[in-house]
This record gives sequence, C-alpha cells and structure tokens, in this order.
Amino acid sequence: MKLGFKYIDGGICAAQGYKASGTYCGIKRPANDTPDTKHKNDICLFTSDVPANTAAVYTQNKVKGAPLIVTKANLEKSGGKAIAVIANSKNANTCNADGIEKAQKMCDLVADELGIPSEQVIVASTGVIGQVLPIEPIEAAVPVLAKGLCYNKNLEAATAIMTTDTVKKEFAVEFKIGGTTCKIGGMAKGSGMIHPNMATTLNFITSDCAISAEMLQKALSEIVQITYNCLSVDGDTSTNDMVVLMANGLALNEEINSEGEDYEIFKSALCEVMANLTKMLAKDGEGATKLIVSSCRTAPDVKTATTVAKSVVCSNLLKCAIFGEDANWGRILCAIGYADADFDINGVGVDIASAKGSVAVCRNGAGVPFSEEKAAEILSEDEIFVNIELNCGDVSAKAWGCDLTYDYVKINGDYRS
Amino acid sequence: MKLGFKYIDGGICAAQGYKASGTYCGIKRPANDTPDTKHKNDICLFTSDVPANTAAVYTQNKVKGAPLIVTKANLEKSGGKAIAVIANSKNANTCNADGIEKAQKMCDLVADELGIPSEQVIVASTGVIGQVLPIEPIEAAVPVLAKGLCYNKNLEAATAIMTTDTVKKEFAVEFKIGGTTCKIGGMAKGSGMIHPNMATTLNFITSDCAISAEMLQKALSEIVQITYNCLSVDGDTSTNDMVVLMANGLALNEEINSEGEDYEIFKSALCEVMANLTKMLAKDGEGATKLIVSSCRTAPDVKTATTVAKSVVCSNLLKCAIFGEDANWGRILCAIGYADADFDINGVGVDIASAKGSVAVCRNGAGVPFSEEKAAEILSEDEIFVNIELNCGDVSAKAWGCDLTYDYVKINGDYRS
Repeated sequence: MKLGFKYIDGGICAAQGYKASGTYCGIKRPANDTPDTKHKNDICLFTSDVPANTAAVYTQNKVKGAPLIVTKANLEKSGGKAIAVIANSKNANTCNADGIEKAQKMCDLVADELGIPSEQVIVASTGVIGQVLPIEPIEAAVPVLAKGLCYNKNLEAATAIMTTDTVKKEFAVEFKIGGTTCKIGGMAKGSGMIHPNMATTLNFITSDCAISAEMLQKALSEIVQITYNCLSVDGDTSTNDMVVLMANGLALNEEINSEGEDYEIFKSALCEVMANLTKMLAKDGEGATKLIVSSCRTAPDVKTATTVAKSVVCSNLLKCAIFGEDANWGRILCAIGYADADFDINGVGVDIASAKGSVAVCRNGAGVPFSEEKAAEILSEDEIFVNIELNCGDVSAKAWGCDLTYDYVKINGDYRS
Repeated sequence: MKLGFKYIDGGICAAQGYKASGTYCGIKRPANDTPDTKHKNDICLFTSDVPANTAAVYTQNKVKGAPLIVTKANLEKSGGKAIAVIANSKNANTCNADGIEKAQKMCDLVADELGIPSEQVIVASTGVIGQVLPIEPIEAAVPVLAKGLCYNKNLEAATAIMTTDTVKKEFAVEFKIGGTTCKIGGMAKGSGMIHPNMATTLNFITSDCAISAEMLQKALSEIVQITYNCLSVDGDTSTNDMVVLMANGLALNEEINSEGEDYEIFKSALCEVMANLTKMLAKDGEGATKLIVSSCRTAPDVKTATTVAKSVVCSNLLKCAIFGEDANWGRILCAIGYADADFDINGVGVDIASAKGSVAVCRNGAGVPFSEEKAAEILSEDEIFVNIELNCGDVSAKAWGCDLTYDYVKINGDYRS
C-alpha cells in the first residue's frame, strides 16, 4: 500500500475482463537461422471482453516499424477502440518492403479468428530490424493463441514479448474511484535501443476503469513524459517503441470525462504502474548490473529538471564509472554541464547515495572532500542514486538508467547471430 | 602530396620559429595517489619565437576548466597574441575552488621564466576532474621545460598531453601561399569524453603563415565545424576542450587579411591537418579497435548531412555491432531515423565499405539482399565506412567515430585508480 494504491499481481490480466495467452511459434532467429532451442514464447495475444477505449504513443524515430503504422491507422478507423492485441518478438518487421502487408495480415488473422473487426486489433513487433517477417508460423499460432486465452495467463504474454530481457516486467495496482475498485496493470519489454522520445519499448497497459478516450490519451501522454521519456539505456531510440493503454470500463465507476479528483487519482495510479515498469526497464538494461536513478531538484522548471536528470543517466562515462564502483563525480558535473538547459553551474550540489547511505561530493560546482571508503561502500549496492540540487527553483524530476558493462558490448556485438 | 599539400614531420615544431619541450614532473595520479611508475611526460611547454596571432575555440560545456577561463581572458587582454603554451595531463584542474588561481599561477611561472607578459601565455590541462591540482611539481618543472625548449622536441610535447591515448597524434603539411612555402602542424590528445560541441579535446596547431587574427579565427571556427565537431567517441562533451591555433608570420608570405585565393589555400591546409588529427582521435578512441567513418551524401544542406552522419557514429548499438563485425544495418537505419533532421526516410540508401570492398544493404529505406559472407569480410578491416545517400540534394558531410568495446568499459570503469 502506497499513496492509496495496493500493489497486486496479474500484470495485463489484473484488471477485469482481460484475457491473455502466449506461445512459441518458431519465428526464425535472424541472420544465421539457428533454431531457438529454448523455445521461449515468441508471440502473444490479449483481449478485452468488451471494446476498450485505447490510447497510444509511438516512437519519434523517422523509421517506424510497420506494426506502428498499421496500429495507428486501425485506432483512427475504430475511433480509438480496440479489443485485441497481438505482439511478437524476434523480428521487428521494420524496414521491410512487405512490412505493412504482413502487419495488416497479423490483424486480419486475429480478427477472423475472434470474429471482430480488423481495425479493433493492435499489432506490435520487436526484435531485429530489416529481416523479412515469416508469416507462416504466425498463421499457425493465431488459432492456438485464441484457444489459449485465459484470465490469468498474463505471464505467458509477458514472456512472449521479451527479447534480450532477462526478467519479465509486470506491475499492477488497485485503487478506488468514487468508492469503486479499479485496477491498472501492465507489461513491458526492454532492454536495449532504449532512449525514449515520446514513447519507449513495447508497453501494454490495461485498466477496467471507465474513462473517456480523450482523457485516457491525455493521461497517457502526460505520464509518458515523466516516466518512459526519462529512461535511457543506451541513447538509441528504437524504431518500434509503442505504449498502448486500454480501458474497458468494466469496473463500472462513473466515467471520468473531465479533469478533477477522479482523473487525478487515475493518473497517479497510471504513473505508479508506468514509473515502476520504467524502473524495471532501466534495471534490466542490456548487460546492466546496477540501476542508476538521477534526481534533479530545486530546478526552475520541469524541462530543466528533466534535461539535467536525463543527461546524467545518459553519460557513457558515468555509466562505466558506476559499473566500476568508482566515485568519479567529475563525470556527473560534466554531464550536468553539457545538458542543454539554462542554470548557474556554480550553484550545483551533488550527492551520491544508495541503501548504504549518502555522501556529498560537490557543492557550489566544486568538489568537497569526502571519504572514498564510504563512497565505495555506497557504490557497492545495485541501486545507485545521484541527487542533484540546482539551487535555483523548486521543481524536481527523475531519470532512470543503468551502468554500461562488458555484457552490453557482448550482447550487442553479436545480436543477430 | 595530396591536393597541393606535402605531408611533413615535426608536429607543432614543423612550422618555423616554434620550440617545444616536455618532461615528467610527477603530478600525482588521482584518488589513490599511486605513483606513475611509467614516468610518462606529464607537462609540456612550447613557444613561438615572436608573438603569434592566436585563435581559439572552447568547449560548450557549462562546466569549463579553469585553464580555459584563464586562457580566454589572457587572449582578450593580449589582443589575440600569444608566445607560449603550457599544458599538463593527469589533472584537468576543473571544478576546483582554487582552479583559476592555479591556472593563473601556471601562466605567471612561464611568463617569469621566459620574461614575457603573462597574458601572452596559454594554459591547458587535461585529466581527472575535481581533484586539486598540485602546483609544486609544476613550479619545479617550468625552469626545466624552459631550458629544454628546442626546435625539434615536438614529440616530447605530444606525449606529455596524452591521457588514455595509446599513440601520440601529430600531423603537419607544407604548402605555398603566393610562391612562399608555409607550414601548419598540430598535435592533439583524445581519447574519451569526446563529443565535440564547438571544439574538442586538446588541440594545438601552429603555423608560420602570415594571417590576420580575424581571418585566423574565421578559418579555425569554420574548419572546426567540419572536423572536430563531427567526431564522437562516447557522447560525452569534455569540460576542458580547447583548440588553439597560432600563426607567427615567419614564413613571410604576404599577410592574408581577407577572403580570397590565399585564404582558401590556408583553410584547405588547416582542414587537412585538422581532419587528419580528427581521424587519429577517432581511431584511438578509448578501447577502440576500429575507426568508423560515416559519410552522408545527397543531403539538402550541410546541417542535415552533418546531423545524419554524426547520429550514425554516435549510436552505441552500431558501435557494438561494428566491434562484433556484425552487418546489423538496421541499427544504421535506426540511427539515421532518430537524427534530428528533415528528410524522407523512404529515399535512404546505405552501403557498408572498407578496403575489402563495398556492399549495398539498404535502398529506399528498406533492406536489400546481400552476401553476409562479403559483409563479414568487409567488416574484418579496421577502418569501416558507412556510406549514406539521402537522395534529396547534393551536399555531403563526414563524421568520425569508433567501435564500443570491452576495453572502453574497462578503462572507464576504473579511470581514477
């Protein structure tokens, strides 16, 4: 229980009326066509029992995966209503001449199988870019997925969207709107090519709250700015980033259709889910051994606070230092200094903290003596906090990142094979 | 001989009237104060026989090393004239409460020793940020440096400014201005925290050409844009970046004081020196095993071309793929796609090339079939070219970078100790 939210299990199936299923259909691993001997789920389907108001945000990369283009067109056609989501890993279906056709086909297959309009199907793909997506395994999988749909198979879906993720990422909360119990749950996949620009990675969030399409989109767009958009693993903005938020109204609360107390509660609950998924994404960044949370406080405005906090978690040099547990705070100052924001560097203070305590390393833009021993103890933890004071305002923001390790290089030196 | 330039030896001593010297003064290695058993040179001095017109560009980082602040003030006081440059490695003298005082002291020491005005001394420091600079070893070194000044000791200076550089970086050319032989030579140090923003790293360039202070600054500012500013090792803009260009006029050519043929020749020669130093910096990026040269052609304007070319060499994911010799061209498209520039992604073509040949991997924004075997052969070389066609104009630009390797992580996980 935190701030009136109860943390619950169930991921995308936590809210009422959502079924999910996942399976292994055998989409070939790219380049060398080595069979995936682990037979991890590579495709999933989930549905709402009734058409759900659906909001979405997409990558700002000019290269957009075909599934994003088809999803966007579908939501426009359906007036922001969706019933089903199909998502696969191993192949991003991006930069392929037949990408749109294949993504459309995935929607058609689901629509035919479930007897619903194709434009109420959302499609997402993640994996290698520029390899033709084989449709045959998907054709074979869709009936299996449809038959397997169940109110508690969220885990089958959460594992199906994993690429180099080492753990599945799910989070859900329960809360009250005007005395009625509502739920929001979600799942996400990371874990490289993460540097959000309006959206990140694949994220699916479901709710049973009754909320208008307009307010749903507004809440999503706002919360994305302070959660996924403050996350960086490696500075590379993916081509297939998408966050989809569905709300089917089955909680039967009075519909939220304007700003006010109910909207604020919904937004806080959504933020709780999205911030926790963001943290999980950062912590499971490719090759990561440590989560880095950068907080920028006493900033003049939210843009400055966000820009500074993000600049710090994006610094390769700092990421390496944190990996090496080296209190090289000069690199923090350096990253604060090249952030594209306006403030007086001579007012800046920095502390480094973890569960083991906190140490002041910089005041008024200059170093202060500190115990290297204490700093080493703090940095031995796996969640490291960089706390920055700009001392020129009262606004705060956070950003999430991870360390840069040998394994990041290893994973990405040989991703396709 | 290339484009009318003759490549010559001598670095910063190639041009007439420049003496240099370097020594080991024992500036403590940071943090653990472990003595540097290699006793590599850590400080250098070089001088022009006569006051030289001197242009400079500095880092855009808000955190500016104290030496930059003092140098800038000196050049303002002296009307852009300088006689001597003192530079040390191992300590950046940045983010220290007494930084300005120490940097000023370094100038004063040189001025006293050489009997010149302190404002005609330029000071530069590179190394760890936020550690107090010990002045005693420098006080002891200045007389030694002054006594050691020689017309051929460029190498002593070039090695003194090295930090994690594995090779010294020098380049020099000889060319004619109106029948008179002129020279430009330079030295640079890398090799991490490199992501230029108006300037990069420490770069010292000397010429015996007669050119007005105004035209000298103009040439430097222009050439920086297409050389050092198109270089990225790790996306971290250093606090101590500085390029200093001195021209003492001892070649006795007719002074260049306006645009025209002579100015263009000077600028081309300067570009030749700076582009070659840029390439050396990229190739010797921390932990690098491969140089990556990204060329963006058929762009509508130079800003678009530069932005796209730079975006590609900055991608951590591509840098890892090149390290792993993996022809993962989707990452190239991805980086082109998130470049902050305006063009049609569906017109883009990409080839990957090296001394072993060239292979087309993308046309019209989509993948084309290619031989993985041929691609692997191409990528086995240590200079890799990514050739991009935007097909919407006739402007080209280049950017230089390097792969991201285990050694980058190793070096930067434990830089201070």
